[in-house]
Amino acid sequence: MGLPIPIETSARHIHISQADFEILFGKDKTPTFKADLSQPGQYVCHERITVKGPKGTFENVALLGPCRPETQVEISMTDSRKLGVPGVIRQSGDTEGTPGCTLIGPEGSLDIDHGVIVAKRHIHMTPVQAIQLNVRDNDQVFVITESYERSLIFADVVVRVSPKFNLSMHVDTDEANAFASDSTPSVTILKLFGGQTYNLQKWADEIQSGITRI
Amino acid sequence: MGLPIPIETSARHIHISQADFEILFGKDKTPTFKADLSQPGQYVCHERITVKGPKGTFENVALLGPCRPETQVEISMTDSRKLGVPGVIRQSGDTEGTPGCTLIGPEGSLDIDHGVIVAKRHIHMTPVQAIQLNVRDNDQVFVITESYERSLIFADVVVRVSPKFNLSMHVDTDEANAFASDSTPSVTILKLFGGQTYNLQKWADEIQSGITRI
Repeated sequence: MGLPIPIETSARHIHISQADFEILFGKDKTPTFKADLSQPGQYVCHERITVKGPKGTFENVALLGPCRPETQVEISMTDSRKLGVPGVIRQSGDTEGTPGCTLIGPEGSLDIDHGVIVAKRHIHMTPVQAIQLNVRDNDQVFVITESYERSLIFADVVVRVSPKFNLSMHVDTDEANAFASDSTPSVTILKLFGGQTYNLQKWADEIQSGITRI
Repeated sequence: MGLPIPIETSARHIHISQADFEILFGKDKTPTFKADLSQPGQYVCHERITVKGPKGTFENVALLGPCRPETQVEISMTDSRKLGVPGVIRQSGDTEGTPGCTLIGPEGSLDIDHGVIVAKRHIHMTPVQAIQLNVRDNDQVFVITESYERSLIFADVVVRVSPKFNLSMHVDTDEANAFASDSTPSVTILKLFGGQTYNLQKWADEIQSGITRI
């Protein structure tokens, strides 16, 4: 398990479908490349979008490209309170039953009835790295953050394996602020319970009942 | 270890000395009681104060009473970025070498050259509760948060024991948002390494080197 995993913070951002992009930015328009992101093929666009909820609005929210089949807005739990929508924690793409919002661009606006998620924290890695780290796609692991004065162990971290990925753990701004990160923070995968997925709530309940597991 | 510990979130707030209070609110004025807090004898005041840093300002920051020997401003890591001061994690009262700020009240303003801290997460408890939980004053413990989809284990949690305390863990808004708390969240103390204090960074380094400790 000799791979420190760089940790990256995702600020609020939007993935958009081509059809929705045209509603906001005009017919036949496409998102324009501004800068590469850490995951291969993903980039931040010049275009920015306003996100409006029942209670609040965020202007100039970053748009990531390329276009996806479905529009998705990723925010933090703090953002969800400001927007006035429930903070629903989901993996990217799993948007059924999530809240909607209004998206506003220079050429039009659009109400989406679902697609606003708080991204579940996750680690991207290649198949080779998954073998080195002894984990599999969709495993839920514990990770230790290396941090000054404010270390913590994240549970419920999803492993995402694809040849298209680079090794990186993604957290949102709330999670990043909960530990005092230095300039290049990293995490280490921790195998508790022999590497089995295990529910922390159940573990807490067991401790309350006097059962000791490790 | 059969005591679930209620977890409470501290928003940004100020403790003030009587002398500093008079600079902001007028000679011979004292803070006025508005509502009790969970810790006995502590209360929130009617008075509010503006906190100004090099980059930003927070208006209407809550003042807690009674007065203390020294003025102290407690903010989150997110707040420290907005104010433009370093986020220095400290226990309450340990303010030497911390950043300062400007405090503004209706009758005057005041530059403090230190006293702005990000409060180190901690658990208040009575001596009897400390015996029940098998911990001592100033112990650093791990705790499991019971939470939906976003559980985590906080390391570096300081135990504070006093007959004047009620059982409660205090975190700041960043830490609270990092786990999805329900309406009455609670935590459980977790004894790793036989209850010895142990550095998570060291543990992470050991895992990187192939050493397994639990």
